[in-house]
Amino acid sequence: MTIKELSRHYNEEVTVSGFVDEIRNLKWVQFVVLRDQTGKVQITIEKSEEKNKELVEIIDNLPVESTIKVTGKIMESPKVKLNGMELIPETIEVTSTNHGELPFNYKDITTVNLDTRLDYRYIDLRSEKNVLMFQIQSTMVRYMREYLYENGFTEIHSPKLLGAASESGSEVFEVKYFDRKAYLAQSPQFYKQMALAAGFGKVFEVAPCFRAENSNTSRHATEFTSFDVEFAYINDFNDVMDLEAEMLAYALEKTNELYGDKVKEVFEQEIIVPKTPFPKMRLADIYKELEERYDYKVDDSEKNDLTTEAERLCYKLAMEKFNSEFLFVIDFPAEKRAFYHMRDENGILQGYDLIWRGTEITTGAQREHRYEEIVKNAKEKGLGEDVKFYLDFFKHGCPPHGGFAIGVDRLTMLLLGIPSVKETEFLFRGPNRLAP
Amino acid sequence: MTIKELSRHYNEEVTVSGFVDEIRNLKWVQFVVLRDQTGKVQITIEKSEEKNKELVEIIDNLPVESTIKVTGKIMESPKVKLNGMELIPETIEVTSTNHGELPFNYKDITTVNLDTRLDYRYIDLRSEKNVLMFQIQSTMVRYMREYLYENGFTEIHSPKLLGAASESGSEVFEVKYFDRKAYLAQSPQFYKQMALAAGFGKVFEVAPCFRAENSNTSRHATEFTSFDVEFAYINDFNDVMDLEAEMLAYALEKTNELYGDKVKEVFEQEIIVPKTPFPKMRLADIYKELEERYDYKVDDSEKNDLTTEAERLCYKLAMEKFNSEFLFVIDFPAEKRAFYHMRDENGILQGYDLIWRGTEITTGAQREHRYEEIVKNAKEKGLGEDVKFYLDFFKHGCPPHGGFAIGVDRLTMLLLGIPSVKETEFLFRGPNRLAP
Repeated sequence: MTIKELSRHYNEEVTVSGFVDEIRNLKWVQFVVLRDQTGKVQITIEKSEEKNKELVEIIDNLPVESTIKVTGKIMESPKVKLNGMELIPETIEVTSTNHGELPFNYKDITTVNLDTRLDYRYIDLRSEKNVLMFQIQSTMVRYMREYLYENGFTEIHSPKLLGAASESGSEVFEVKYFDRKAYLAQSPQFYKQMALAAGFGKVFEVAPCFRAENSNTSRHATEFTSFDVEFAYINDFNDVMDLEAEMLAYALEKTNELYGDKVKEVFEQEIIVPKTPFPKMRLADIYKELEERYDYKVDDSEKNDLTTEAERLCYKLAMEKFNSEFLFVIDFPAEKRAFYHMRDENGILQGYDLIWRGTEITTGAQREHRYEEIVKNAKEKGLGEDVKFYLDFFKHGCPPHGGFAIGVDRLTMLLLGIPSVKETEFLFRGPNRLAP
Repeated sequence: MTIKELSRHYNEEVTVSGFVDEIRNLKWVQFVVLRDQTGKVQITIEKSEEKNKELVEIIDNLPVESTIKVTGKIMESPKVKLNGMELIPETIEVTSTNHGELPFNYKDITTVNLDTRLDYRYIDLRSEKNVLMFQIQSTMVRYMREYLYENGFTEIHSPKLLGAASESGSEVFEVKYFDRKAYLAQSPQFYKQMALAAGFGKVFEVAPCFRAENSNTSRHATEFTSFDVEFAYINDFNDVMDLEAEMLAYALEKTNELYGDKVKEVFEQEIIVPKTPFPKMRLADIYKELEERYDYKVDDSEKNDLTTEAERLCYKLAMEKFNSEFLFVIDFPAEKRAFYHMRDENGILQGYDLIWRGTEITTGAQREHRYEEIVKNAKEKGLGEDVKFYLDFFKHGCPPHGGFAIGVDRLTMLLLGIPSVKETEFLFRGPNRLAP
C-alpha cells in the first residue's frame, strides 16, 4: 500500500514501506516520518508500552534515510499536523540501512552547488520537489501520447545509430562501429518522414537525441528526450500548428487535473490550460509590435530570427494581445531553416516556432515532399552523398506532410518554472558531464 | 478523413488522400484503388461522362504508388468486392508522383531477398502487413504503458551516453565525446535502479539499447527497443513475475480487442489472452520433464541454463501441462547471472526467465539492494572502478526492488509469428547494417 492510500483505511491494519524521512526521539515517545513517492505519514511509538520495547530499540539505532517496512494500525488523528493521521506500528522491518551522512542535505539546497547535486543525483532526486517533477513530466508525456493515439497515430522507434552524419555534419557524435564509423542521431526527423513515405500516415516517437554541441546554457544538453510528431495528408502548416496546440492543451488539462494543486503548492506555479487554436504572428509584425509596445529595437540584420530577448518579450506580448501564454511565430526567412522545410511559391517558409512563456519549445513545419524539389533544396545547401539515402525516400511517391518536435526536458522546465534543463533531465549530460 | 471512416458517410461528399495502390484502365471505365494506413477504397471513373474528361486524363498519366487527394461522393456498392463501396470522384489532385519503377514488388516478396527489402525499407514497409505490424506494436506498447501508469509508475528517460563501460565492458560501443570517450548504454538497468534508490517507487522506460555484439541471429540486433520496468517495496521476485504477467495479459487483451481479427486474417496468428498468474517451473524440473515427456536429453554441464531447443520445447510443455503459452523458469544457478541479481541465503537466484511460445522474452529478478552485499557481489565478479558509481546508489538506503525488461521487437516477432527481429524493427541495425 502507498502512503497516499492510507486515509482510506482508518482503523485497519496496514503495511507500508518507505524511507525514514525524519526521527524525533523524545523522552516518552518516538515520532518517525515515513516517506514514499506518494507522500509522508507519521509513525508514533509510545516508549512506555512494554510491547514497543523492540520497536524503540530499532528506531534508536536507525539512521534517517534508511528504508523500513511497517505493519500497524492507521488512525485518524486531527492533532497530527502531517495529514491528520498516525500509524501505530506492530512491527518494523529495516529493509536497508543508510551508511553514513548524506553528501549534502537535499532538503535544503540553497547553499548547495548544482554540480554537487548532479554528482550525487541519486540523493538530489530524493526531494519531494524532484520526485514530483518527474511524476509530472511522466504525466505530461502520457497525455501527449494519449492525444495522438486517440487521433490514429502510430508510435515508432527509429534507430539512433546512423551510417552517415545526417542533417548537418557538425555537432554529430561519432561511434566506433566494429571496423567502421557510425553516428548518433541528432533527431528522428529523416526517419519519421520515412514512415510517412512508407504509408504510415501519422507517427510519433519519444526518444533520446544527441548533439555534440560544446556549449553550456540552461537550455542545451548533449543528450535530451525529444517528443517528435509527423503526419501526412495535411493541407498546409496550419494543420501542424493546430494539432500541436490541441495536443498541448489536452495534456495540460489532464496534468492540471492531476497535479495542478501540487504544482501551486510545491513549485508556486500555475498550470494554465490554454484555449485553442493558439495565436499566430508573423516574425516581422512581432518586431514591429515589440518596438511600438516596449521600445525594443534590434538591428535589421537580426530580424531574420527571434533574439533571446525578443522570445522573452513574446510572453508579455502574447499575454497582452491574446491573453495566451503560447504564441506561434511564422514567416521566418527560408535561408535560416533546414533544406527539408517547405517554402511557398514566394519562398516564404511554411514553418513556425512555438513560444511558451517566453521560450521557444518547438520548431515545426510542413516538409518538402516533392522529389524534384527536395533534391534541388539539398543541392542548394551543398548537401551531397550523406543525405542521398534520405532523398531516396521521396522518389516513389510521398504524401504532403509536416510535423514538429518538443524537448521534454525544456517543456518540464517551463511548466514548473525550473531554471535549467540540468535539473529537469533525469540525469543531465553536457560537454563536461557524463556521470553518474 | 481516413478510408476506414468512409462507411459512416455514404452518399456524402468526402475528401480522402492516400497512395494509388492499383489502376485498372478499361475501355469504358477506370478503377483506381486508393490506400491509406487504415484500408483501401475503389474509385470509379466512368469514361463516357463528359465531366470526367479531366479525371480520366489524370489517371491515364499517373504511375501507381503516387499519392492523390480525392473529393467525391462515397456510395455503398455491394457489387464492389473491396469493402462494398466506391468513391465517385469530383476532383483528383496529384500530391506526389512516383518516379519510376519500384526497386521490388513489395506486394509479393516471396522471391525477394531480405537484404534487398531492408535496403529499400521505405518501400518494404508499404505492405499492408508491415504497416499493420507497427500499428500492433504501437498498440501493445501503449497498453503495457497504460497498465503501469494505472498502477502508479513513473516513466523515466535515462541517459544513453555513459562515462564508464557499465555492466560488462565487452560488447559496448565507444563514442568520441569531445576530448574523451563515452559509451552507449546496453540497458537502463543501473539507472532505473537509481530512480528507486532516489525514492521514485515504481519506474519504467521504453528506449533504445545498444549491444556491440558481432553476431547474426534472428533474435539479435546492435540496437533494439527495450521496455524496462523496475519497482520497489516488493516482498520477493514473485511480485515481479506477477506484475509482468498482469501487464502482458492486459496489453494482449486490449490488442486482441483492437486487432485480433486483423492478426488472424493477415498474419494467420491467434492472439490468446493469457490467464494470470502464469505458471512457474524450476529449471531442473523442466529438464526432468522434457526428458520424461519428449525424450529430450542434454548433458548435465548444459543444465545450468536453458538451451535453445529446451526453450522451444517449453512451449509444448507449458501448453500440455498448464494450457499456457507463457512459462516462468526459475531457480537458475547464480553464477550464470549478473552480480546485481539477488540470491537467497542458499545461493539460489531470485530471478527468472519468461518463455513465450518457445522463446525467452524476458529476464527478470529481485535485485540486491543491500550495500554490503552488492559491493561484495561486484568484487566477486571482478568488477572494479567502472561500477563504483552504481554501487554508490545503494550507500544511503535503497528499498528492496526488482524488475525486468522486454525486447519490443522480439515481442512483436512472437506475437505475429514473424521469423526475425530484422523485420519487426522499424529499421534493423546489425554488424553489417547501418542503412538506410
